[in-house]
Order: sequence, then C-alpha cells, then structure tokens
Amino acid sequence: MALVVQKYGGSSVGTIDRIRNVAGRLMDTQREGNRVIAVISAMSGVTDQLIGLAHQVMENPPERELDMLVSTGEQQSVALLCMAIAEMGGKAISLTGAQAGICTYGSHTRGRIGSISPGKIFEALNEGHIVVCAGFQGVAEDGDIHTLGRGGSDLSAIALAAAVKADICRIYTDVDGVYTCDPRVVREARKIPCLSYEEMLEMASSGSKVMQARSVELAKKYGVVFEVRNSMNNNSGTIVQEENSAMESLTVRGISIERNQARVTVSGITAPVAYTAIILTALAEAEINIDMIVANTAHDGRARQSFTMNMSELGAAQAALKGVLPMLGPEARLETEAGLAKLSVVGVGMRSNSGVAATVFRALADAGIVTGMIATSEIRISTTVEAADVERAARAVHAAFHLEQGS
Amino acid sequence: MALVVQKYGGSSVGTIDRIRNVAGRLMDTQREGNRVIAVISAMSGVTDQLIGLAHQVMENPPERELDMLVSTGEQQSVALLCMAIAEMGGKAISLTGAQAGICTYGSHTRGRIGSISPGKIFEALNEGHIVVCAGFQGVAEDGDIHTLGRGGSDLSAIALAAAVKADICRIYTDVDGVYTCDPRVVREARKIPCLSYEEMLEMASSGSKVMQARSVELAKKYGVVFEVRNSMNNNSGTIVQEENSAMESLTVRGISIERNQARVTVSGITAPVAYTAIILTALAEAEINIDMIVANTAHDGRARQSFTMNMSELGAAQAALKGVLPMLGPEARLETEAGLAKLSVVGVGMRSNSGVAATVFRALADAGIVTGMIATSEIRISTTVEAADVERAARAVHAAFHLEQGS
Repeated sequence: MALVVQKYGGSSVGTIDRIRNVAGRLMDTQREGNRVIAVISAMSGVTDQLIGLAHQVMENPPERELDMLVSTGEQQSVALLCMAIAEMGGKAISLTGAQAGICTYGSHTRGRIGSISPGKIFEALNEGHIVVCAGFQGVAEDGDIHTLGRGGSDLSAIALAAAVKADICRIYTDVDGVYTCDPRVVREARKIPCLSYEEMLEMASSGSKVMQARSVELAKKYGVVFEVRNSMNNNSGTIVQEENSAMESLTVRGISIERNQARVTVSGITAPVAYTAIILTALAEAEINIDMIVANTAHDGRARQSFTMNMSELGAAQAALKGVLPMLGPEARLETEAGLAKLSVVGVGMRSNSGVAATVFRALADAGIVTGMIATSEIRISTTVEAADVERAARAVHAAFHLEQGS
Repeated sequence: MALVVQKYGGSSVGTIDRIRNVAGRLMDTQREGNRVIAVISAMSGVTDQLIGLAHQVMENPPERELDMLVSTGEQQSVALLCMAIAEMGGKAISLTGAQAGICTYGSHTRGRIGSISPGKIFEALNEGHIVVCAGFQGVAEDGDIHTLGRGGSDLSAIALAAAVKADICRIYTDVDGVYTCDPRVVREARKIPCLSYEEMLEMASSGSKVMQARSVELAKKYGVVFEVRNSMNNNSGTIVQEENSAMESLTVRGISIERNQARVTVSGITAPVAYTAIILTALAEAEINIDMIVANTAHDGRARQSFTMNMSELGAAQAALKGVLPMLGPEARLETEAGLAKLSVVGVGMRSNSGVAATVFRALADAGIVTGMIATSEIRISTTVEAADVERAARAVHAAFHLEQGS
C-alpha cells in the first residue's frame, strides 16, 4: 500500500466537470490500494477575480488582508472536490492549509513553509478518507493566513509529500511531462521519462514553465520523488529524482527556451573594484531579477558588464542604474537591447562528456544564427539569440544531439 | 472610552460602495473615542451562490464540506472591509471565526457557540486596530469549521459582545429599529425606543423578522445591551435591555404579524392520555416546528387537538400524523386549514394590567374579524385570523391601544 500525493492545478479543477474528473482519478488511485492525499489549487480564474475585487477597493491592499481574501479560493475548491468524491460514493475530507498543519513564516503573499504537522492528515487517512488539502496556503505562528506566492500549490504538495514520507508526489498539469523541447517549437520533441533534480532545476530556471525552481529545490532537499503528469489522460509522465548513472548516458537531456529577454550593458567603467557590488546592489534594491551576468575588461582598462533580464524589468533596471552611473566613472554609460531570447541546453551527462559547447555553437553557426551572451553551469549552456531566431536555434540544437531518438 | 460591537448583515456589505459605507461608520465610531469590533456577514448573494455551486456537484452535499465552502463568504467580506478601512487611512485587522476564538459545538451548518477566547481580539484592539470578525462561523474542538445557521451573524455579535464585555452591541440592518407594527401594514406605526429582552423575544418568535429568538435569548442570558439600527442612516434605533419599571407603564408595546400559517386538527381522539405525546413525537421526528397548540375534550369524551405551523410544513405534518392516527382511536381524523395568519400583541405591562385580552378581542370584533385559535403567555396574546383580515386586524388593535402615540 503506497502513500501517494497528487497535486492538481487551477485549470484541472476549473469547472465542476473537471472537479468530477479529478474526484474520479483520486478514487481510482485509492481503489488501487493506495492512501491518497490531494493538494488542490483554486479553480482557474477565481484567484484573479478575488484580486480584482480587492483592487476595486484600493490600489495596494494590505497584504495580510489579500492573503485572507485570496486563500478562500482553495478553500472553496477543496470543499467542492470532497463533495464530488462523496457524490461518487467515496469518503473525503477537506483541509485548509492551517488544518493540514502547514506552518509558514516570512511575508504575506509570499510565505515560506517552515514545518508541517501532519497529525490531522494521518488521522483522516487512517479513517479511510481521501485527504484533500488546500494548496498555496499555510498559517503563521500568530494564526495569520499566509499564501505562498507563484507556484505555491506545487510547493505545498512537495512539502506535504516530504512531511508524510509519501512514496511519490504526482504533479498533474496540462502537459504530459517535461519534453526535450517545447513541442510547439520542435515537432520531434519527446517526453523525457526521467530527470535528475539538477536537470529539472536547470530546465525550470531557464524557461521551462512546468514547475517553479523553488519546488524542485525543496524536493531535492528532502529527496521527494515526483512525477509531472497530465490530468486529462493516463499517460506516464516525467519522473524527477536523484541522479543515477543511467541519466549520464545521454549528454544532453533537453532544451529550454526563454523569450522576452533584454540585455543591459554598462560600459566605460573606471571605478575601483567595487563596481560589480555597486551595480548589483542598485538592481537588488529595485527588486529586479537578473539572469545572466557577463563581465570583462577592455584592453584600455575600462570594464564593461552585461546582464539579461525579463523585458518587463528593463525600464526599472535602466532607472535604477542611471542613479549609480556617476559612481562608476565619468564616461560610464548604459546600452540596452530588447527583443532577445535565451536558449539553454541541459544535461548531467555534460559533466563527463567534453565538446558539448562546441557541438551547440557549431549547430547554431551552421544554421546562420548569431549568438550573444553565453553563460554556463556544470550541466547547462545558455546563450542569447535574436528572438526571431530562437525556434530555428532550438531545432538545430535538438537535431545536433539527436534528441528525437528515445533514451 | 467605550467598547462597541457593531454587526452588519449581508445587504449592508452587498457592494463595494456599501462596504465603504460600513468602513466609514466604523472609523467614525473609533474617532469618537471608542474601541470597535465589527461582526460581518457575507456579501448578500454570495452564500446562496456558493450553496448553488455545491448543489451543482451533488444534491445533498456533506454538511462538513458545505461549512468549509460557505464560510469563505464571510472571510472574503471581512478582508474587503479591512481593505476599505485601510484605503481611508484607518487600521483594521480581519479575523475568521476561528481566529476570533469563537469555539463551537454541535452539528455542521447549525453549530452552537460554546465559548469565546478573545485574546487575539484584545491584542488587536490594544494595537489600535478596528477588529473585523467573520460572523456566522466558528471552529469546533477538532479544528473543523462550523457555520451557525440562520441568524448566525447576530449570534456571533451578541456572543462576542458578551465575551469582551462590550458596553453595547449594535445590530445594523435595513430598518430603523423595531416598530409598534410593520409600517407597511400600519402607517401610524412608531419606532419603539426601548424594549425588554422578553418583549423582543415574543416579537421575534411571533413574526417580527428583525432578529432571531436565539440571539435575543443569548443577549438576555449574558445581559448584553443591544440596539437595532439602520446601516444607511444615523437615526437612533431600538435598544433592548433588562426590563425596567418605565417599560411597564405601557400595557402593549407592539404587534407582530406572521403570515403563511396553517392549522392541523386531530379530532375524534379516544386513545388513552398518551395521545399528546404520540402526536408531538410524530411531528418532532418529522422535524416540523409547530407554534400554537390548543387541546380540549368534547362533551362526548372525545378529545381534539389543534396546532399551527408554517404553511410550508403542512404537507409533511399531514404525512407524519397520518401514520399515527390509528393509535389515537378508530374514529380519529385529520382536518387542515391553510391561508391563516397570526396576530400577536406584546408588552410586559400586560402582567400588571387586566383587561388587555378583552380590549384586543373587542377591537377585533368591532372590526368584524373572526378569530380562531388563541394562545397566550404572560406578556403576549396571539390569535389566528384569516390571512385576508390580518392587516385590518393589526390596524384595529394598534388603534385600540393608541400605539401611534409616543411612549
């Protein structure tokens, strides 16, 4: 008898019919002899609708009250799901984040999970219930409700799976799993049956929208084996777990694309060595998330430093850096470039296989694609390309590593 | 510095503009130097909408899950109200029933308040907050959410006022207070400035829709002075408190009308003395609320017993009694009459004034109105009349006691 956590996002419970579909899946899993915990998001659209209501009242509502308001979305969906299970003759019990023992700390609207006390969950499981927990929320020590920010329901599911020592955590979504590349871009893209946490992290942080990096990090920290699956079919998905030797047999596992990238370059820097700290502090204070960083020194002794970021942050980045330019030297100046995309090639096999970078850039050059900034990790190579070129670039690299062939 | 509880119902917070109106009133009350606790219902329509959603899933949803679902209505309205207060520059904090320390017991969807632990409320008051509590809900010992059934938000307000020892509890509604009679029926009806708990109870249980009897009973039990007021103006309302000598100076304080009444009569009863128990048990098992009971024995030794009830319960009452007729005697039979109304005349002054009943029935007779069943308490006289006659009856009695004149 396995202990299974299943997480369903907002679109999987977006209508009463879809809630019934999820109820049926949970009952099937229980009938197969498993103990079942579900983690559920708000019905799609409900969270935005509640936020819209708050903004009718005021522009910047207090975040404590926003959490109070928005957390009702999941409370409603878990109750409706339990009703659907009851309608089918099953036994289910719904729990808010607080009732499920999900204790949080940190800020409102972006709380962090501190600990989980799964007493009530086990009690309900022992009574034969399917336990349906509200995702995306928890309770602070002072009794206040916290929501967990973007990707919060995935985080709830992974954390619960860790706390109850689940055999597996299944993250249901609207795709069949993680692909070697976005199938809308590369028609030959294949579903990847198995990934390491590190690979999933690199995919997540380089544009693959399947899951947020912080949930993958949490799974890695507690060794939670999880599977990304489709809530509308029974296909096997992508299992994410500790790296094993089989994974290294393939040099490259997948390709991520991130669009809407922009570059900011500060050139003519003559300030002392502290210049990187000055620049990064200015960006951090403006709460701008930067991605790639490239720094070098020109032959005339003047340094230049470039960053990439989402296009939506370009204006704020320019404003933030303008203020510190005088501290960087009399001739320091800003250049910006929008309309970029980032192509990332990921695989733990890179570590033991040389020549991966050469193959990537040879493939891109053969396709006539100009590359810009380059960043690498142990298991990833990223490069910026013109936005218009990114799909052609992905197809070229996908073909160069024969990713259309099964593992 | 007074400690004031203010309760606003669903229609008082039914739109964002009305929520702003309530926010303004709470801030005014705080600015006048009071500490303020608000108890708020769900925005009007929201509860019905949530119940409708549940019924889309199944006909008889589990009541535990219904409570989980429906309690989100108040959680949303308290959060929105706190945002509106923040928008006006005030400080407010919202609390669910559980956070407010409202502990319940009993059944789901009709929980009862067992105790209140107002620690968090006082903490927030001491920090200068307006404390906005969700009405209609509390938390059971096992952590489950309970809703309190009809009139539950009034009950929350009275119970909180008792727990924090508030100086007054103001129940805001869409009328100016309790009237000597429904002003739509008797144009000369006046607002009653002050009532005793007993009078308010008799008015509530005999058709006056302003407040449910169980909230009045709770206020009486803990000596909570409350005032029924209009949320859309600043008129003084009706204060309800312990009886005092001034109240006895008027024989009759008000007239209640209850429409949609029906009568069931069981006649030809020859069974032993247990017959009343047999009949009442059958009705109780069918969960039928009966109101007036009249029993007598005819000269031939056969007993007859009549009851009144809401017309909507007539069918169920007939069905329930049919089953026990054979136990009441071979010639026992049922008669029913729908289309009745009940007129009740209430006042603590009745106790010390004789001849009240005579005045009531003289006035009705002079107006040519036929009366049916009669029931009395120490401070109330009720009679059934034909539904078509009830408004004329109310006007005749109102005039007979000169209720159009101030106290």
